Amino acid sequence: MRVVSQVSSVRKARTLEHRPVALVPTMGALHAGHISLLQRGRESGGVLWMTLFVNPLQFGANEDLDAYPQPRDRDLQLAADAGVDLVFAPTAANLYPPDFASYVEPTGAARLWEGKGRPGHFRGVATIVTILFLICRPRWAFFGQKDYQQLQVIRRLVRDLHLDIQIVGCPTIREPDGLALSSRNIYLDRRARQSATILQRALQAARMAYQTGVSRGDDLVTTMCETVAKDPAASLEYAAVVEPESLQPMQDADDSARLLIAGHVAGVHLIDNMALVPERLVSCR
Amino acid sequence: MRVVSQVSSVRKARTLEHRPVALVPTMGALHAGHISLLQRGRESGGVLWMTLFVNPLQFGANEDLDAYPQPRDRDLQLAADAGVDLVFAPTAANLYPPDFASYVEPTGAARLWEGKGRPGHFRGVATIVTILFLICRPRWAFFGQKDYQQLQVIRRLVRDLHLDIQIVGCPTIREPDGLALSSRNIYLDRRARQSATILQRALQAARMAYQTGVSRGDDLVTTMCETVAKDPAASLEYAAVVEPESLQPMQDADDSARLLIAGHVAGVHLIDNMALVPERLVSCR
Repeated sequence: MRVVSQVSSVRKARTLEHRPVALVPTMGALHAGHISLLQRGRESGGVLWMTLFVNPLQFGANEDLDAYPQPRDRDLQLAADAGVDLVFAPTAANLYPPDFASYVEPTGAARLWEGKGRPGHFRGVATIVTILFLICRPRWAFFGQKDYQQLQVIRRLVRDLHLDIQIVGCPTIREPDGLALSSRNIYLDRRARQSATILQRALQAARMAYQTGVSRGDDLVTTMCETVAKDPAASLEYAAVVEPESLQPMQDADDSARLLIAGHVAGVHLIDNMALVPERLVSCR
Repeated sequence: MRVVSQVSSVRKARTLEHRPVALVPTMGALHAGHISLLQRGRESGGVLWMTLFVNPLQFGANEDLDAYPQPRDRDLQLAADAGVDLVFAPTAANLYPPDFASYVEPTGAARLWEGKGRPGHFRGVATIVTILFLICRPRWAFFGQKDYQQLQVIRRLVRDLHLDIQIVGCPTIREPDGLALSSRNIYLDRRARQSATILQRALQAARMAYQTGVSRGDDLVTTMCETVAKDPAASLEYAAVVEPESLQPMQDADDSARLLIAGHVAGVHLIDNMALVPERLVSCR
């Protein structure tokens, strides 16, 4: 496995590489969710590239950029074990010169939900993803459905800017008790770790309500709110039943709907989401 | 010469084309300035592609989108005469679906000068140029120095987003009396046409002042203002002596400086610019 930090080195590697590239962009702190993306990339039949970059652009001023876990050696070992051929691990200075001035600004779905609470976040995500796509020129790029809004923003920008890349959204990987894997879960102490499952339980409660005939968006949202309210350690940021691409709230939910939820547990920002109707086949779309 | 309007047709043509592409993006209403860009493209040794698209995104609400000249047949004849191999002439609907939501937002130099007077203009320019670059995948793209700020914004975004394209800035083509060629010059009646040369004369006056030892930015700006003030038909929007890349005003000008000027003549928005020191060799850089 090669590890490179310079843009020029990746460009050269890309020019010499005649097989198609399967790309898994990450911020490191790899967990089983990332590993599942790498496995999916491996199965593409192309060469497997991973990027490892904690992108300062997508962190707000009061967010956890400095604290974000960076177990570099462990990440590289996990990547090697997963069959990664090349890791692109640039520094911020490699990608953002002091006079950097060109951003990719997603509107529409990016202005809702996480976009409201974290101004500039999706601009940062869209900008870095576009840059990594243009440097690595992959045929496929793999993202987790765990960050569902991010996935939709990226799908949209790939279509809008006519990037010739197939975006593959892969299932959320969960702990045995249902908690969605996230690099931020390490911030949770034992007590908070127990409470963190409340988001996932709220999503399940809404699914169950829908199965018993509740289909008004407001009622499903109420179900989620009431579930989260049961745990005093958790505070809800938003719960929503949305159209799966535009992420606009649905007044009357149907089988296409997506459930989104976000909250704080012991000061840690957590998000989760599910299709309103369980996918029969849990497979990458 | 092929003329195509569908993105899928250009993509297919690009995939089949093994020579490098020299691209000249235009909004049509071709004049000798565009023809000089096409000639320069022709000389690259690649295949010559031109885009012809009046981009609604870069026009403000009160601007001349609907009135913008679109002599389509004449444009296509001129392109064919100039040796263009393929014209990509999409409709707005081809490029901007109703749920289009991803913009390229240039900051820095794009926030100054034209960017102040025309909010959203450079966002529109940066977005369409990026889209055309990603569809056509040229090795070179040719732009006139006439739109100097646009040229610098595009150079910057190509660097920032790591587009693998060489941007070639080509000299402004002028009428015998010095007026910079522009598709908007046709809006000028006979009287206004005479006054329109005032911008160019103001630039020349600043150059002359610099040659005689005036180097304070403010003094050079005053020279330009005073020149424009002599013609009551013209109103100045801005005159500036700027650093050639950042476009920030220079307190003390040196040989690297660029002069920028914009004004209205009989309701028509005109811009012009020159290097403070005449280029010895008028050649494409």
